[in-house]
Order: sequence, then structure tokens, then C-alpha cells
Amino acid sequence: MSLNGKEIYSLAERLFGICRSITGPGVRETLAILQEYLPKLKIEEVATGTKCFDWNIPKEWSINDAFIIGPDGNKIANLKDNNLHIVSYSIPMDVELSLEELKKHLYSLPDLPDAIPYVTSYYKETWGFCLSHNVLENLKEGSYKVVIDSKLENGVLNYGELFIQGESSEEVLFSTYVCHPSMGNNECSGPSVATALASWITNLPKRHYSYRFIFIPETIGSICYISKNLEDLQKNTIAAFNVNCVGDVRAYSFLPSIEEDSLPDNVARHVLKNLAPSYTEYSFLERGSDERQFCSPGVDIPMASIMRSKYKNYPEYHTSKDDLDFISAKGLEESYELFKHCIIILENNLYPRAKTKCEFQLSKYGLYPSMGAQKKSIETKLIWNFLAYSNGKRSLLEIAEKLKVPAWSLIDILKRLEEKSLIEVFRK
Amino acid sequence: MSLNGKEIYSLAERLFGICRSITGPGVRETLAILQEYLPKLKIEEVATGTKCFDWNIPKEWSINDAFIIGPDGNKIANLKDNNLHIVSYSIPMDVELSLEELKKHLYSLPDLPDAIPYVTSYYKETWGFCLSHNVLENLKEGSYKVVIDSKLENGVLNYGELFIQGESSEEVLFSTYVCHPSMGNNECSGPSVATALASWITNLPKRHYSYRFIFIPETIGSICYISKNLEDLQKNTIAAFNVNCVGDVRAYSFLPSIEEDSLPDNVARHVLKNLAPSYTEYSFLERGSDERQFCSPGVDIPMASIMRSKYKNYPEYHTSKDDLDFISAKGLEESYELFKHCIIILENNLYPRAKTKCEFQLSKYGLYPSMGAQKKSIETKLIWNFLAYSNGKRSLLEIAEKLKVPAWSLIDILKRLEEKSLIEVFRK
Amino acid sequence: MSLNGKEIYSLAERLFGICRSITGPGVRETLAILQEYLPKLKIEEVATGTKCFDWNIPKEWSINDAFIIGPDGNKIANLKDNNLHIVSYSIPMDVELSLEELKKHLYSLPDLPDAIPYVTSYYKETWGFCLSHNVLENLKEGSYKVVIDSKLENGVLNYGELFIQGESSEEVLFSTYVCHPSMGNNECSGPSVATALASWITNLPKRHYSYRFIFIPETIGSICYISKNLEDLQKNTIAAFNVNCVGDVRAYSFLPSIEEDSLPDNVARHVLKNLAPSYTEYSFLERGSDERQFCSPGVDIPMASIMRSKYKNYPEYHTSKDDLDFISAKGLEESYELFKHCIIILENNLYPRAKTKCEFQLSKYGLYPSMGAQKKSIETKLIWNFLAYSNGKRSLLEIAEKLKVPAWSLIDILKRLEEKSLIEVFRK
Repeated sequence: MSLNGKEIYSLAERLFGICRSITGPGVRETLAILQEYLPKLKIEEVATGTKCFDWNIPKEWSINDAFIIGPDGNKIANLKDNNLHIVSYSIPMDVELSLEELKKHLYSLPDLPDAIPYVTSYYKETWGFCLSHNVLENLKEGSYKVVIDSKLENGVLNYGELFIQGESSEEVLFSTYVCHPSMGNNECSGPSVATALASWITNLPKRHYSYRFIFIPETIGSICYISKNLEDLQKNTIAAFNVNCVGDVRAYSFLPSIEEDSLPDNVARHVLKNLAPSYTEYSFLERGSDERQFCSPGVDIPMASIMRSKYKNYPEYHTSKDDLDFISAKGLEESYELFKHCIIILENNLYPRAKTKCEFQLSKYGLYPSMGAQKKSIETKLIWNFLAYSNGKRSLLEIAEKLKVPAWSLIDILKRLEEKSLIEVFRK
Repeated sequence: MSLNGKEIYSLAERLFGICRSITGPGVRETLAILQEYLPKLKIEEVATGTKCFDWNIPKEWSINDAFIIGPDGNKIANLKDNNLHIVSYSIPMDVELSLEELKKHLYSLPDLPDAIPYVTSYYKETWGFCLSHNVLENLKEGSYKVVIDSKLENGVLNYGELFIQGESSEEVLFSTYVCHPSMGNNECSGPSVATALASWITNLPKRHYSYRFIFIPETIGSICYISKNLEDLQKNTIAAFNVNCVGDVRAYSFLPSIEEDSLPDNVARHVLKNLAPSYTEYSFLERGSDERQFCSPGVDIPMASIMRSKYKNYPEYHTSKDDLDFISAKGLEESYELFKHCIIILENNLYPRAKTKCEFQLSKYGLYPSMGAQKKSIETKLIWNFLAYSNGKRSLLEIAEKLKVPAWSLIDILKRLEEKSLIEVFRK
Repeated sequence: MSLNGKEIYSLAERLFGICRSITGPGVRETLAILQEYLPKLKIEEVATGTKCFDWNIPKEWSINDAFIIGPDGNKIANLKDNNLHIVSYSIPMDVELSLEELKKHLYSLPDLPDAIPYVTSYYKETWGFCLSHNVLENLKEGSYKVVIDSKLENGVLNYGELFIQGESSEEVLFSTYVCHPSMGNNECSGPSVATALASWITNLPKRHYSYRFIFIPETIGSICYISKNLEDLQKNTIAAFNVNCVGDVRAYSFLPSIEEDSLPDNVARHVLKNLAPSYTEYSFLERGSDERQFCSPGVDIPMASIMRSKYKNYPEYHTSKDDLDFISAKGLEESYELFKHCIIILENNLYPRAKTKCEFQLSKYGLYPSMGAQKKSIETKLIWNFLAYSNGKRSLLEIAEKLKVPAWSLIDILKRLEEKSLIEVFRK
């Protein structure tokens, strides 16, 4: 099974409406939908209070209803209208307040006056509402009734994990979020594209590497996951990718791992250079996602991010404007293809070695023109160059960089040459 | 004995008229001429059918006559007029054909309509004639008689080898071709310049390195040579140079070894940078000569090429236009000088170490002005800088790069400082 | 005690009038003044004739008076007017000469006709006078009486040495000159700024490194010093700085050590890049001070020079125009600050390691906003980035380069994080 752009977009649509936070029923509802696509997805839970390095799993938050009733009796900032209206992790509330008192708990964006901002307060108990600046500006003096029907109780943090066994115990890790409420690029796109990738890999006839997909709440989720799995992660992971902000068509962005030239960095750069050469490479100083944890000192998992419009770098970011119109089937499918190409390179990143000294007499194998003046085809040249660099010390990716061609254009050549016994291949 | 440009050109002229191929009497005739200049040149032979890695020595080809008689009784494409007229390795033939049938065996260059192309078919038995497009276009309908008086028989492949003993068993290798028929730059220039170099080295009063010159048929000749000498080549060769396309004055070209920064690469670049700074450096992807074999995986001999107009990069390439007018005494002599400078650097590429700590009191040795305000000469500065970098870890070439001067400008300084016991020198 | 720009300038003024050479009473008078500022400065002496590598300590030179009396009875080139008038190390003389004979011993600068040049002849016994070209041009025919009341006798070479003990036996070395007569930038500025630095370091409450300041005659002084102290220098010195030409405001100059990327090179470049980004970096080929000895083969002390207008690169160099007007309190103080920043970096160039895996929950420590939409301050971002790079393998300087901030902006952060037990720190 392989999802096309429209199907990935449909999945994003299904995820969009759910009111998610870092814990609570929204995460479980989300993971249940993903399980429809990935039946082997395991849903894990970690209890409130569990220590994870410097952090503790917070209380579980659930919300049933939230709104403000104005002096004129109209509902404002109604959770039922848009789940961005409530500050995530708001404590229960049922009070009457003056407009002045109320305003201390209201958030808006003067520069984007018709957008609702996205605000959270996971680790400091408070409450608040988000609304458009246009609405905020027109609130009249009077008494406002605030209703927040939420619960903050001991419970669990949930995440999803899918392990896909390959021939090798070495793993490629994909990480994405299930904590953002109704926003498109950041972040219904990530889990949707990751699901499509996991589905595609699951259905490959064979895989050299094993693959691990984790669908986690941002920050606390990755910290929790790492604290439970550090030793295995460090032992097995050869490359990790963060899948987020992968839904729009406005830009291509790349954020390398902290080491800047790790395996996933080099693979991702090669793919972007060949498929989306206008991409922008950001510095690790501009990081803002779970590479913060995976690349942290002592964890040291090489994690690269291929993105479209990067978090913090597009005006719609973390507002109601980052909606289902901002992302598209085209944007999602292109992102999916980029990651697929990364996987294809990794799977085929073998070290070929020519089985003769000097050149082969390629015309014997039908791989070279027999007459000196005949024009060589592009493929003939590629084969000839590929063999020249096949000394057992250069990987397919390194040879592709030398030959200034996409690595995937060499895979069939590698296979044909191996079948004809002209090369032998190694993994390193 | 040392050949000047005119003498090198005369040798090229003598070689030009001979009908050569990768085997046969033309090669022997060529080597016999070279022996006049290099009496110690050994002529080797390897029997048809001998296995050389993935190749076998082909049958020996000789040709006595070849022409076509047209409907009007005139001879066309007569070997006696130009030995490019026959496709090299054409099988014997004596038939009458219609123009249409004949044309399947005719080769011309529509873009260079008055030039005869150079075509070979060593490994596929066929026959053909090359002629100018102007002649081809004017052939009239009718019956054509084809005569090829050639032989393809068991025999030998010949090559020449000259070994010049030095103080060290470490060797510098020069390789050039004796298989091209009547063309000037590619390739009467290569064996002519190589002969001049070998002659000059032979007559040096002493040599640190040993030198090996091989005069071989392209591709099969180098493969054959390597297959017979691989172990010694790998054990002894510190640097190798390919000598081809060294006769014209239009351009300077450089093709590095596959490693791009081997010893001969660095020596050749230094020489070109200082003597012909407008040279073009090509990528190893644009290789096309025997570095294909010497730099192949498992052979790994570092071979660099200093050229003038590079094969495939000049319109006259592999046509009758690459003639004795295309090359010149000036072009040949300049190329000869470039290689001579490479040898001079290699011979003198010592590691000097100053025999004092701190600076010497150079005025004591007459190497520095005694008064503080006196202007230092360029040579004084050179000595002073040379000593500053003479720590026993930098070679003459590396110091020259640091000092931004030609390496040969430091040789006398090195010798004077060694004579005055200010430095000791090492080989590495 | 810490000297400000005015006080450094006052010291330079006091040093200016003294008639110095590489030996003699001028050096002792100079060192006696420096001892007023640095009571622990030790004054060393090395006897004439002592062998120092390729050199010998020369005779001690002292001069009481020197002048020429012209045909009209007027004194010319009177040492009492300007001590540049006498060629340093001139032998005693009392003769009458024709103008033609006299001129063989006169030095002037046609291109700078109102300046007196600075000329020395330490190692060849001769005599001479320096005067402005304007004066020289107007000398009339006639008899000239030359009086040089000098002595060249067995004696000593003096230098000053100050050792400031730190917690570690590893040392930072500062070297400057006490041999130049009345010139400002080259070189009353060097010993004045070095004295200010030594004074500041002495008064620091604690120091990690030990510091060594040497006030030496150029060339023979450093050679002498190195010959007596080579083993200790090589064992202890982690970085060395040459302090010369540090008094004017026209330019910032940097001359790296011969290795070009040693510790003092990297520290100095970082300081200049952040405080004087328009600085010029010179090649080691343009060296001309005691780095010639310290960076020589077999000595190998990494010595970098931060300068203002570099010797040989300003028209006033080695003339009477390099006077007290050419330097200024501002120029001296800015130079002093650059070196101070080098020391501050070295002292704090620790290797921090975060004491958790994954990120800290910084809001717990008051180091991060608790709500997701709050703007992070510059300092918050700096802390967050600093911790991300604190893996125990990167020094403070290396982290600063990654974070593109001055290294000193991270010192308080490092200390706060260490106090809060979020990092541990190492020296390497």
C-alpha cells in the first residue's frame, strides 16, 4: 500500500479537527486513526510523574468545553468553534470577571489581527483564551463569564511506536508530533507524511535496515522516549529524520544535525540538491523541534530535518491561518517523495568494488560501443565512470557526488554490474 | 644529449607517416626509430591470445593496401594517400558493391566536411573506410570495387620499455602511445616528447629516482603492461605521468589522477601554475587516456597528465586536420620543459631542517645585510624565508607553496645552505 | 592597580627620551622605570661573548655624546637633540673629514626629507650619523669635525623578566622590546602596554594560568632568552603574544604564528573579529619581530602578534616621525583592551558539559519562559544554545564561534550554569 498526495491530505484532514495537547484523549484519538493505516503501531503510555532526565511527565489534561460569555450574552472564544481558542493545559475555571481582569488572560496577534494564536502553558498552572485581535479590540466593558470545563489529573502521556524489521539490526528513525491541535503545516502534515512513509516501507518486499517511527508529543514526548530507550537508540540508530512542517508548497528548508555533516545530513542534502535545489539550509542555531533532544549532548543521535516552510519562518506559523488551505496534496506528496529518496539512498548506499584490475572490456558485456568513433550514450558514460570509482572505499552516495549525478540514478547500474559479476558490494 | 624543439619536431615528422595500429609492423617501425634516440630501449612482445585481466591480446593486424575504385575507375580513399582512410583493424576484402551497400562502411564528418576521421574497430571484426564528407557527398550511383589487402593473424603486441637506473629503487613512470596513425598532436607528439625527456634523463650526471618510460599501444597496451608488472609498479612507483597531446600551442590542459591530490598532481599543478598559469584543469571524469588503467581500482598508480589541447576538446581531434601543421617545435618544446620541471622538482623535493634553533646570524655567512636599514635583496628574503620554514617536516615543494615562489627557485638556495652546513636534508 | 590609557601614555613618554640600544645603560634605565610599576620585575644580565645558538652576546655599547661640527662651527646631528642622530653601536671617533668623506657615513631619507632615519650596525664595527635629507642637502663643502664619545666594551646584555604564578604551571608568554631609542609606536608602545597588562594580571584575585612577561632587546635578546630557557618554554608555554607597534590609531594588524591556527592565533583572531573587525591579517612571510625566533624550527612556540600600524607598513616607521604625537592614550588603551580580552578568553576557555541528557527544563531554573508563545530574550537564547553545544568536547571559544558571539559574552552564562549545577567544566 502506498499513499498518494490526495490520500495523505485526507489523513491530514481527519487529524485536523481533533483537539490535541501533549497528553489527553486527543492524542489517543489521533493514534487510533493512525493505527487504521499502520495496524502494527503500538500505543504506549507513561504515567504522570515519571521522571525523564530533568523532566517529569505532567498531569494528563482533558477539556470538554471552554468559552467566554460577554455582557451581551454572546459566546466568545468558543472551543467548539476552534480548538486554538483555549490556552493548552488551562486549568478548570468558572468565574465572572471585568473586561480588565479578563484581558490578563487573553492572547491575540496585533500584527495578524484576524488570526487566532496558538498558546500553551504546560508547566505553569494558569488559564487563558486566544482570539483574533479584531475580536479582542471590540470587546465592550462589562462583566464576562469564563467557563473552562477541563481536567488536570494523574494519567498518562501516550505515544505511538512502529518498528519495521529489516535484515539488519541497524535502524533508521523517523520522529513526528501528535500534540499540535488544529493546524495544518505544523502539525497535521508531519504525522500524515510519516504515516505514508511507514506504510510504504512496511510494504517493501525487503529492507536492509530496520525502521522505527515514533509519533510523539513534542519535547516531553521525545525526552520521555529517549529516557526509556537511550541505550538501544545509541546502539542501533545510523540516521534519524524529523518529519515536521512538510505540508505547504511555499519553500524547501533543511536543518542539519548539530554535527552538520552526519549521514542523514549528507543524504538529505544530496536529495534536496538534486530534487529541490532552491532549498534553504538553516543553521542548527535555528532549530526548534525534537532535534533539540536527539542531538543533545550525551544523546548524540544524528537527526536531520527536511521541511517546507520552516517553523517560525512563515507568518501563519502557530496561528489559525496555518490551516487546511495552507497545506496541499501537492506539498505533502513532494515532501513524502523527498524522504522516500532518502530511504532509497540509505538502502542502496553500498560500497562497490570492481572485480578486475584495469578497466573491463565493456564491449564484451554490451556495455560499450565496439568502434572507436561511436558516440557513447549517457548511460554508457555513467557505467564507465561508476566502475572507475568503484574501489570498495567509496559509497554509492560518495560516487554519486563525484559523478555529479543523483545517487538513485546509479542504483540500477550497481545492480546490473553486480548481476554481471563485474563488481562486488559491501556494507560499512 | 638533449633535444631542442626543432629536433623533437623532426622526430614527430619521422613518426607521422607510419601506418600504426595497436599491433603490427607500424608499431615495430616506430619503436625502431625511437631506439635510434634511446639505444637502451627494449622492445617487448606479447603473444596474441595472452590473457590480461579482462582482456586478451588481439590478433596482429597488418595492411598492405586499401582503396575503393569508383564507377568512373578512379581510386577513392586510398591508403597510400592517407593512412586514416582505412578503419583500423579492417578485415581483408575484395568485393563489388552498390553505392548504397558501400555507404554502410563509410565514415565522414558532416561538421568538418574536408577532414578525414580516424576510426578503429579492434574488437569487432568489420571493415570500413574514412573519407572527407565533401568526397562522400559527391559519390555517384554505380558499382564500387573495394580492395583491402590486410591480414589478421596470430602474432604479437609490441611495446617499448626503457628503464633508467637512479640511486633509489623508487621510480617515476612516463607512459605514452605508439598506436595512433598519421596524426600530430594525438599522437606523434607524445612519443616524441617522451623520447626527448628520456634522453635528457639518461644523460643527467646523476639521478635520485629511477625512471621508466613505456611506449605502448593505448588501452590494451597499458592493460597488458600492468598485468605483467603490477607488483613492481605498485612497489616502486611514486609518481606517474601520461605524455599525450603535447604538441600544439593553443592551450594548456591538466588532468589530475583520480585521487586529485597525489604527488604527481601537486607537482604538475605547481609547474603549470608557475609556467602556464592560464591552464585549464579538467576533472578526472573527463579522462580518456591510459590514466584510465593506471588509476583504476586495484592498480592505484597516481598518474597525472599535462597536455596542450586535450583529446576530445579541439575540433581537429581524431581527424586528418590534426596534422604536422597543427603541432610545432614551439609547442613540443614548451611541453618538454613542463615535464622537465616536474622531474627537477621531484629530484630536489627534499625535506630541509635548519641546524640551529632560532634564526642564523646570516650576516656572518654573507647572507644578510649587516646594517639595520639596508634593503634586503629578493634572494636574501628568499633565504631567510626558506630557513624559517625548514623544520624537517615540509618538503621543498611545500615550502615553495608557502613562499609563493616556483620550487626550482629554491633549489640553489637549498644546495648553498646545505654546503654551508646551515641545513640538513632528508628524503621521505 | 590597573593603568588607563593616559597612564600608559605617560609611561611611554617617560621611556621615549632614553637613548636605548640592544645593550648598555639605556636598557637598564628603561627596566628601572618599569620596575616602579612592576616591583617583582627581575633584571637579568648575560655577559658579552656568551654563546646563544648561532649568535654571541655582543660588546656592551654606551654613548655619552655625538655630534658633527660643520665648517661654520655649528653642531649638526647632535645626539643631545635626538638620539636617532647616531647609528646605534657606532664606534668612538674623533676626526676631521671632507664633506665627501663624511657623506659615506651619513644616512637620510630622500622620500621623507624632514625625518631622521633609525639605523643600527650591531654586528659590523662602523660609525655613522642619521639626519634629515633637508639638512644633508644643505651641507656646504669644507672640513667637518666628527665626535663620537662612545664605548664598546665587554659588559652585559640586560633584559627584564616577570613571572606571575597562577594555579597551573602552564604559561602564557608576553614578549616586548626595550632596545629601540626615541620612537613611539615602534617601540615605546610595546613595553608600556605590556607593563599595563602585567600590572592588571598581577592584581587579579586569581589566575588559572601562570604568566611570563619578558622585556628584551629585539633579536639577540629573544635568542639569548630562548637559549637559556628553551626546555621550560617548550614544556610550559601554551600561547605566546608579541607586543609591539601597539600605540597609534590608524590601523589594526594581525600576524599569526607560523602554524597559522595555533591557540593564540585563534584567540587573537576571535578578539579582533569581534572588537576590530576591519583588521588586516598579514602572512607570516611579512613577519619582522621576535616571532622570527619563537616560531623558528626547533623552538616552535606559538606566538601571535596583535598590532596597530604594523612595522614596515607605515611611512613613519623607523624614523623620527614615529614620535609621541603618532601614538596616543586612545591607541594604547585600545591595544591593551585587545590583549586583555585574549587573556580573559584563555582564562575562561573551559570545556563545559551539560549534566543532563536532553534539554534541561529551563523554566524550572528561571532560565526559560513558561508559556509557549512568549518571546525569548537574547540571553535566554544564548543560554539555550550554549547548553546545546556543551558536550565536553567544545571549548568556550569553539562554542562562541558556533554561536557567532564574542566568547566573553558566554563567561557569565558558563559561571551561572556551573553554579546551578547544570554543567560541569573541564580544562584540556
